[in-house]
Amino acid sequence: MDMYPEKLRKLYTEAGADAVFVECDFLRRYLTDFYSTDGFVLLTAEKCRFFADLRYFEAAEKQLRGSAIEVVSGGYREALEAAKPYHTLAVPYPFVSVSALRLYEKDGHETVDCMPAFKRAMLVKTEGELARIQRACEIAEDGFNLLLPEIKEGMTESEVAALLEYNMRKLGASGVSFDTICAFGENGSVPHYETGARRLKFGDPVLIDFGCKYEGYCSDITRTFLFGDDGQHEDFKRVHEIVLTAHELVKEKTVAGMSGKQADAIARDYLREKGLAEYFTHSLGHGIGLQIHEYPVLSPNGEDILENGMVFSDEPGVYIAGKLGIRIEDSLFMKDGKAVSFMTRTSRKALIL
Amino acid sequence: MDMYPEKLRKLYTEAGADAVFVECDFLRRYLTDFYSTDGFVLLTAEKCRFFADLRYFEAAEKQLRGSAIEVVSGGYREALEAAKPYHTLAVPYPFVSVSALRLYEKDGHETVDCMPAFKRAMLVKTEGELARIQRACEIAEDGFNLLLPEIKEGMTESEVAALLEYNMRKLGASGVSFDTICAFGENGSVPHYETGARRLKFGDPVLIDFGCKYEGYCSDITRTFLFGDDGQHEDFKRVHEIVLTAHELVKEKTVAGMSGKQADAIARDYLREKGLAEYFTHSLGHGIGLQIHEYPVLSPNGEDILENGMVFSDEPGVYIAGKLGIRIEDSLFMKDGKAVSFMTRTSRKALIL
Repeated sequence: MDMYPEKLRKLYTEAGADAVFVECDFLRRYLTDFYSTDGFVLLTAEKCRFFADLRYFEAAEKQLRGSAIEVVSGGYREALEAAKPYHTLAVPYPFVSVSALRLYEKDGHETVDCMPAFKRAMLVKTEGELARIQRACEIAEDGFNLLLPEIKEGMTESEVAALLEYNMRKLGASGVSFDTICAFGENGSVPHYETGARRLKFGDPVLIDFGCKYEGYCSDITRTFLFGDDGQHEDFKRVHEIVLTAHELVKEKTVAGMSGKQADAIARDYLREKGLAEYFTHSLGHGIGLQIHEYPVLSPNGEDILENGMVFSDEPGVYIAGKLGIRIEDSLFMKDGKAVSFMTRTSRKALIL
Repeated sequence: MDMYPEKLRKLYTEAGADAVFVECDFLRRYLTDFYSTDGFVLLTAEKCRFFADLRYFEAAEKQLRGSAIEVVSGGYREALEAAKPYHTLAVPYPFVSVSALRLYEKDGHETVDCMPAFKRAMLVKTEGELARIQRACEIAEDGFNLLLPEIKEGMTESEVAALLEYNMRKLGASGVSFDTICAFGENGSVPHYETGARRLKFGDPVLIDFGCKYEGYCSDITRTFLFGDDGQHEDFKRVHEIVLTAHELVKEKTVAGMSGKQADAIARDYLREKGLAEYFTHSLGHGIGLQIHEYPVLSPNGEDILENGMVFSDEPGVYIAGKLGIRIEDSLFMKDGKAVSFMTRTSRKALIL
């Protein structure tokens, strides 16, 4: 069962409370390695209990037999009852509602935030976690390759996004890791564009930022290309080349021991050299795992030190409002002191369909 | 702009605080009628301000010009700053994180829960809301009709669900209203089954419970049918007929002024007559709107009184563990004192593909 006992002990200690109580699904999954839409985890100095209802009890018992997790048949009532003897509860504040907090308080608990402990613990991935992220990346790339020949003039951004999402589901993804961004033409210049009803025309630039989930773990990838060459997009081609170089430089030069700030500077300095730094209006990257935005942060303020087993995006971009937007993104991981891309199946070129 | 001023005044009064502060997306949409993934609403005795960032400001200003909503350019910082003069903030406890609560407290605010006021306000839908739910229902039904000829032996539950979701997206849905439940064979006997890898065989019963979102509003529908007639499913056909009758009786007999309990009893009493009441292990229905589970509650304990403009599901079911599961569901609304179905395009029969 991986490194669970050590992982649980460390998390419990760092949380600094009598017990850790977790309701939210992805942290429950992190603790137990078992997926369920409902359930509760109570982690104390002595043991880790997972409260599963009738839908999940049998499967959880089977999967977790012999592990450090004791599966208990029960729901919210039973979990809260079991937590009563523990005065101070560590709960993840960003993922606990005030309604839940009031219930804990009614039972006489004090609470502290264990999200910082979770964030630290989740920074470095295990082999099992890396394998799942790898699979999520493969599915995303295969889904994209299936999509390319299906893109036709007149399709809307929403249709293209829906088709890509369907491809990923068909290939084994449980869902998307975030709402697919599909932007045609000038819409690409909005970094967090909301996919809409714009129809594809010959010569349009296409930016697709997407990812899927596999066994809870996320992938994240962006490709920008042209739908036919109308001879009007020489600026696009020139800038694409520059962004691609910035993207590749990050892969080449990022080594363990660097800070997120230093990795960010690899891309940002190169874009500055080319006079484009002012158009790179976001961070270079973010951690990826059970959530699409985790640690480390790769930005001009990123203090995290990059280590083996960390996973993060490499996504430089250039956005000139109303004119063009180009972003090229892979999900990377640190291995043997160097950055390695999970993405090996798709082209990053400004390919022309 | 619909009935906004009255709606806002009533909500403010019922919330019983100096101001109402809303971060969560569907309540923000309810208040402003404007969709955004980010933003903040501050509702006070004097005015209603919507804080929109650069992505949304222009569109919000355009849509809300002349309405009771003042659009302000800004994010979390600006919204919290504007809330400072108001001592007691009403916030929706189930949708506010402890992290957010701590920020309000840091600014010296006391908080009260305004979710009960929202729930009451959202019980009765406006014409505009009914029209969106109607469209969400039409898309769901059309997506289902497109799916039927595409279902083939050997497909997995996940594939069928993905295809149905793709159809709905293609027809204009912004997404699903909940994870599609697609259960083949004996899997149908688990009321909240998780769609999986079971492959379709000739003669299998198929249960699909699904819905989509259109402009924020949800639809909810379930159909159960046979994939080919292997002559082994006489029990299925008999029980299907009974569940369908229970479902139709609810539509015929539900009138304004009834309680949710009385509506539930229409189906439950009929199933009792047929000796199947013990297998109807959930409520008859739930309210539907911006969320998939709203008020009124139609259950043996449902105290809500059904009124014109309310929207709810009619979903009797019979589940015999490991043997069969049949549920038939429409989304209904109350009009001129009677229940009317939004679903007119799909068959409810135990059709055989």
